[in-house]
Amino acid sequence: MGARRATLDEATVISRYFARPGGGDVVLGIGDDAAVLRLPRGRDLVVATDALYEDIHFPRGTPARAIGHRALAVNLSDLAAMGAEPLWATLALALPVARAPWLSEFSRGLRALAEGFGVRLVGGDTVRGPLSMTVTVLGSVRPGRAVTRDGARPGDGVWVTGHPGDAVAGRLLPAGRRGRDAAALRRRFLYPLPRVAEGRALAGIASAMMDVSDGLHDDLGKLLRASGCAADLDAGALPLSAPLLRVAGEEAGRQCALTGGDDYELLFTVPAAREARLRRLAAGWSCPVARIGTVRRGRGPRWSLRQRPYRFVDRTYRHFGGGARP
Amino acid sequence: MGARRATLDEATVISRYFARPGGGDVVLGIGDDAAVLRLPRGRDLVVATDALYEDIHFPRGTPARAIGHRALAVNLSDLAAMGAEPLWATLALALPVARAPWLSEFSRGLRALAEGFGVRLVGGDTVRGPLSMTVTVLGSVRPGRAVTRDGARPGDGVWVTGHPGDAVAGRLLPAGRRGRDAAALRRRFLYPLPRVAEGRALAGIASAMMDVSDGLHDDLGKLLRASGCAADLDAGALPLSAPLLRVAGEEAGRQCALTGGDDYELLFTVPAAREARLRRLAAGWSCPVARIGTVRRGRGPRWSLRQRPYRFVDRTYRHFGGGARP
Repeated sequence: MGARRATLDEATVISRYFARPGGGDVVLGIGDDAAVLRLPRGRDLVVATDALYEDIHFPRGTPARAIGHRALAVNLSDLAAMGAEPLWATLALALPVARAPWLSEFSRGLRALAEGFGVRLVGGDTVRGPLSMTVTVLGSVRPGRAVTRDGARPGDGVWVTGHPGDAVAGRLLPAGRRGRDAAALRRRFLYPLPRVAEGRALAGIASAMMDVSDGLHDDLGKLLRASGCAADLDAGALPLSAPLLRVAGEEAGRQCALTGGDDYELLFTVPAAREARLRRLAAGWSCPVARIGTVRRGRGPRWSLRQRPYRFVDRTYRHFGGGARP
Repeated sequence: MGARRATLDEATVISRYFARPGGGDVVLGIGDDAAVLRLPRGRDLVVATDALYEDIHFPRGTPARAIGHRALAVNLSDLAAMGAEPLWATLALALPVARAPWLSEFSRGLRALAEGFGVRLVGGDTVRGPLSMTVTVLGSVRPGRAVTRDGARPGDGVWVTGHPGDAVAGRLLPAGRRGRDAAALRRRFLYPLPRVAEGRALAGIASAMMDVSDGLHDDLGKLLRASGCAADLDAGALPLSAPLLRVAGEEAGRQCALTGGDDYELLFTVPAAREARLRRLAAGWSCPVARIGTVRRGRGPRWSLRQRPYRFVDRTYRHFGGGARP
């Protein structure tokens, strides 16, 4: 009660939780009408924006720190998928009421991730409204080096980082479920780690790349559509984590990996001539990387399992008109 | 109702209403994980972001075209207040349901303004959620030329563009009120025109600048606080429009101008030595400009009317904890 429960006005929210001094490439930070930033000489600007709304993108009751983390993570993941270096972010935050404990945890989650990746919060807007936020991340890339979705060619390998499927399992696990595996999966849902260093390293190696947010199968379809290609994929090669296998079993784990979403892993294609380079590079990464198929002429992804066509239910969430999330 | 009432999925919304080809300074536009942009050589990047929520920033029933216009206008106004040139924008749009007629009008309002100012929509996110949107505008400025809020010095004149107070009158007029004046005031609320050319021209002339969004008195307080100054202001010099005077009368009109908000006019200070230059320049502007006071040593704005202290009720909306809008 008292001060801890008091609502804060906008100026206090900004100065207490988000404002940081300028300096370096931040000519002018938070607090004026706009931020002024200095892009490294000879680099292109890369921009991504993503909105998160309570009950749509995260369940009611999600810890404030996880929401702050996620708001930035999903955008960093977009920049990673371009092979870009993130530099700055802006935040528009709507809150039904501005309470200090929530804001403190939210900004801690956002700041920890920002500091981990050298990203500076340079602008924002805080308003009264239903719990939701939009982060815009700004970064840079060498001209001509951004990795788009449309560069996959027949013969390229199809690759994915990390363990897709963990996040959706972490989200769907009953609240009463305890133990190390459950905790690990929940952490993967609540605190996705954008593959920023991996994405940057893949510029010059990957022929096409995107991040996995709506589910591996659905997102792969987008990449192949943009590239005008098909792909033969081995569902048996999907890199399922040990916690996912123990909690969900192999078949349900596979379906989580294919249709779950919220993974924020990188999905990319690599020409055969660069595969050895990729393997050497990936040996030093903190996340695994798996080759799950090969790009072919044609249209769309074709999954098989033990040399037979593999069919599964596509429960991927679609934002509009697609029904509820799984 | 068939197709007109059908809901649209995200990919359709983006491709039909918002995607535009790249080219020029847009290396890669809408449709990939992020946009890639080429900032003019030797310029700094300027970034502003603003969120609008139904019932908070615009009343329920506001025409979709006016919402699209406003979402971009409030951000362009922020860039104008820095003396910057706007180049690109991203849009995060949340809709309870995606219907073609609404989207068509919304995108028309946004696009008309964008085209008028040479701004290109380069990225976005469309999600299901309560009607709300966040626009981020990106632009450029010559290094060292951005006009901040903290440069006002004793002796500088205090100036404002246009006719503050019109917007709030247009918003508060009873729906039944007809006639040319009412229509003009409503238009000023629904379709605020950001002072982009004027702001750019003021770089190198104004010592401090901001845009008026929360009300002239409150915003002037922010500028003076940032500059560490006071100002003597003449409420009789406030540039009240003829429609406002006819509809509200002089005294209420003055209070609209001081506390109403939503004006998106420029509020700025000009050293005496540059006043003649400003007057010559402003003679060619499409909006009027008025000198309403003088910066002094001390703290905060001091209003007078006919040489006597002028007091008025500050009904300015504050985003959090400040009660309802007037």
